Amino acid sequence: MKIHDVSVGLHPGMYVYPGDPEFSLIRMKSGDAVISSLSLGTHTGTHIDAPAHYFEEGISVNKLELNNLITSAEVVTSPQMPAKNCKAVLFKNAVPLSLETAKHLLLAGIKTIGCDTPSIGDDDVHRFLLKNGIIIIEVLDLSNIQDGVYRMAALPLKIEGADASPARVVLLEDRV
Amino acid sequence: MKIHDVSVGLHPGMYVYPGDPEFSLIRMKSGDAVISSLSLGTHTGTHIDAPAHYFEEGISVNKLELNNLITSAEVVTSPQMPAKNCKAVLFKNAVPLSLETAKHLLLAGIKTIGCDTPSIGDDDVHRFLLKNGIIIIEVLDLSNIQDGVYRMAALPLKIEGADASPARVVLLEDRV
Repeated sequence: MKIHDVSVGLHPGMYVYPGDPEFSLIRMKSGDAVISSLSLGTHTGTHIDAPAHYFEEGISVNKLELNNLITSAEVVTSPQMPAKNCKAVLFKNAVPLSLETAKHLLLAGIKTIGCDTPSIGDDDVHRFLLKNGIIIIEVLDLSNIQDGVYRMAALPLKIEGADASPARVVLLEDRV
Repeated sequence: MKIHDVSVGLHPGMYVYPGDPEFSLIRMKSGDAVISSLSLGTHTGTHIDAPAHYFEEGISVNKLELNNLITSAEVVTSPQMPAKNCKAVLFKNAVPLSLETAKHLLLAGIKTIGCDTPSIGDDDVHRFLLKNGIIIIEVLDLSNIQDGVYRMAALPLKIEGADASPARVVLLEDRV
């Protein structure tokens, strides 16, 4: 089975959204072994936004529906729209999503939207998607991925009460 | 498709291995949205050990073979040994693995070993497994999982150069 890793690497000095915490990894010793202390923002690198990112009463990242994170996903190059009947769509060379497009995707039954840019769209687009229970995945690396349908596993950490989490996202070669 | 989440929740005050960094999550504002600053050890909660945990030249967690993290896995209650032909075995009610058992599992072709305790075994067992390229998953929550074979997705963050990473681990209902 061919597995494509579509997550960006996490390392000191990496790009973070303006105002977000910097990434740091500090090596420590623990007896015979090396352990490390890790510090980063919840939106660092490839990450998944939950409704709690914009809404006080919104569900947090640990409660996102796993069936919408482990599912079939169509990769499409913007400004194309998904053609297949998948619950997830990942936009390659993503342009900021308009509110109109976001509404169209909701009506099409899309549950998860990903992009290879730092942000899927403006505040209004974030609010609209998250209010309607659509999961957002940002900062994917889709540079080596051809358009088509894959099996996706997009797994955030199970951080209780968090607005978002860094995630590992993979696509399994199942392209049709 | 039934998906079992076998990861523990991450929250302030949670158990960490003695000497490891504490977990913290600090909420911040970013314009209209909530973001958070996250601080934790690489071995906090459900996590995956890479050879770099014990060996200076060992590969780091971002380079672990995804085919050994997304694979079939047998859940067995200790001290039972795996009976099926899976690449991964997850020990429920795990007892510390002896070096002899570790050798037996290597010979059986096991590539990934998980447990529901803070440690799979002592330093010698860690060294033996990691030196032989066997991936270690610790602090799983297998309390609601029946023995049997599942499809597993065990995804650490892609932290460059790290000895380990917190991970989200799920089992897909595929039990035979």
